[in-house]
Amino acid sequence: MPESAFAAWRVRIEAVLERALPLPEHSPRRLHGAMRHAVLDGGKRMRPLLVYAAGTAFGASETVLDAPAAAVELIHAYSLVHDDLPAMDDDSLRRGKPTVHVAFDEATAILAGDALQSLAFELLADAPVNDARRVAMLRELAIAAGAAGMCGGQALDIDATGNAATMAVPELQRLHALKTGALLRASVRLGALAAGVEADTLQRLDRFADALGLGFQIRDDLLDVEGDSAALGKTAGKDAAQDKATFPALIGLAASRARLDELAVVMREALAPFGDAAARLDALGHRAIDRSH
Amino acid sequence: MPESAFAAWRVRIEAVLERALPLPEHSPRRLHGAMRHAVLDGGKRMRPLLVYAAGTAFGASETVLDAPAAAVELIHAYSLVHDDLPAMDDDSLRRGKPTVHVAFDEATAILAGDALQSLAFELLADAPVNDARRVAMLRELAIAAGAAGMCGGQALDIDATGNAATMAVPELQRLHALKTGALLRASVRLGALAAGVEADTLQRLDRFADALGLGFQIRDDLLDVEGDSAALGKTAGKDAAQDKATFPALIGLAASRARLDELAVVMREALAPFGDAAARLDALGHRAIDRSH
Repeated sequence: MPESAFAAWRVRIEAVLERALPLPEHSPRRLHGAMRHAVLDGGKRMRPLLVYAAGTAFGASETVLDAPAAAVELIHAYSLVHDDLPAMDDDSLRRGKPTVHVAFDEATAILAGDALQSLAFELLADAPVNDARRVAMLRELAIAAGAAGMCGGQALDIDATGNAATMAVPELQRLHALKTGALLRASVRLGALAAGVEADTLQRLDRFADALGLGFQIRDDLLDVEGDSAALGKTAGKDAAQDKATFPALIGLAASRARLDELAVVMREALAPFGDAAARLDALGHRAIDRSH
Repeated sequence: MPESAFAAWRVRIEAVLERALPLPEHSPRRLHGAMRHAVLDGGKRMRPLLVYAAGTAFGASETVLDAPAAAVELIHAYSLVHDDLPAMDDDSLRRGKPTVHVAFDEATAILAGDALQSLAFELLADAPVNDARRVAMLRELAIAAGAAGMCGGQALDIDATGNAATMAVPELQRLHALKTGALLRASVRLGALAAGVEADTLQRLDRFADALGLGFQIRDDLLDVEGDSAALGKTAGKDAAQDKATFPALIGLAASRARLDELAVVMREALAPFGDAAARLDALGHRAIDRSH
């Protein structure tokens, strides 16, 4: 049952993103082409699915959720474009395609990322909800994307690269809470905010989302050790090659897997009071920590 | 009289920016340091002054205008950080200081720019005005910063570099209307939107701002030909060295200067109905096209 909803939402978000992005035949064409390359036709759409699942759990329509779903994906996509740059992770393969700076050029990749970030906020400003909810979503996304969120986490990650051996587990958790956790949490919150939930519901959803975010990253670390590049759509084994701090490196494979089991319990307990309404959110949480790519 | 207001606003915006930026002693310190390096203690603060001048002309208090004034400066500052990168203009000197990627490193410069953009939207979401005005300002800034504005103009500029000889004047005007004009126009509009002006007032202000933006760029081109690096705080003569399309290159020095005189008339006429209330806006318009650095 959740699977068919996810498939439908993936089709839906693709169309929403397609409409939101500037046309490739309009000038500046190279910039527009790079923005579309970065966003369309790829990815698990984990963050939009979280928006739709959280929002519909509390009564928002899919129409209302299109803007926040697209906005979180645009922020995610821009962060990948910039992370892949030669000065950052220097990756040439992403979602099975050449990265933007390889398919286009570095300057265009920098600008395309910048423009995707702006577009995310533009979409939220036009979301078909009242102004109070628009502002709440805009504030949420701006904080999650910035220095206290995703960008800050990426900065911590750069600082940590090459120092894997000296990093403590709480530091690594903070790194991921910012780098990937902040936007995953924002995805859940944006859906809920679009539905107009109360503060206590948001707090409970935060517990779910924080466990999901940490579990997602531990799974990512495990996949880098265990996975193969073709299934991942990106280069496997890079973390160890770059001496990045990872959970398997710090606490071992067995303890990393045990941690995932604990987080599954946390997620299930956080969602329990919402009953069947949260079934799709629950399914997404478990996919995040069970996935094979 | 306008001069003393500008000096006071410059002191004011410095304090507002200082408070808005993350503390350098908080982690991630390198990112925070780079963000502060990019923003504090430098620049003419042209865009914040436009926000204060436009807003106070229509009755907004300076307290209300602090957030939009800081937001436009953060967008401007981030764009400079990214424009200066080796993959873009590859500049090592900005506002008389080493550029961010020189003082820090490329990865940190990319991230600092990204985080400054997010921070701009975060500030607007918390501006002390009603939600309708917050959303109007957020929408305005997002459009001005993105592919249909500043980023799009920068992309056109990159496309044009090396093709100065083949560019027509309307194309060059479009390039600048996006690259620098969109954010200057947004500065004026954000001040006016914070004050809650009507649509016909916004239209008139657009005429003023568009003339100011074009004049600002023509003056910039002239300064690159005529100026010296010390006064500019950046490298003079770079446009010609990079074979960039400029107004002096396309229409000559005399015609460029004549164009500035025409734009001065357009600006004065656009502001005429507002009388003395717009005196500081008028003064800023004339400074933009008369400045020596």
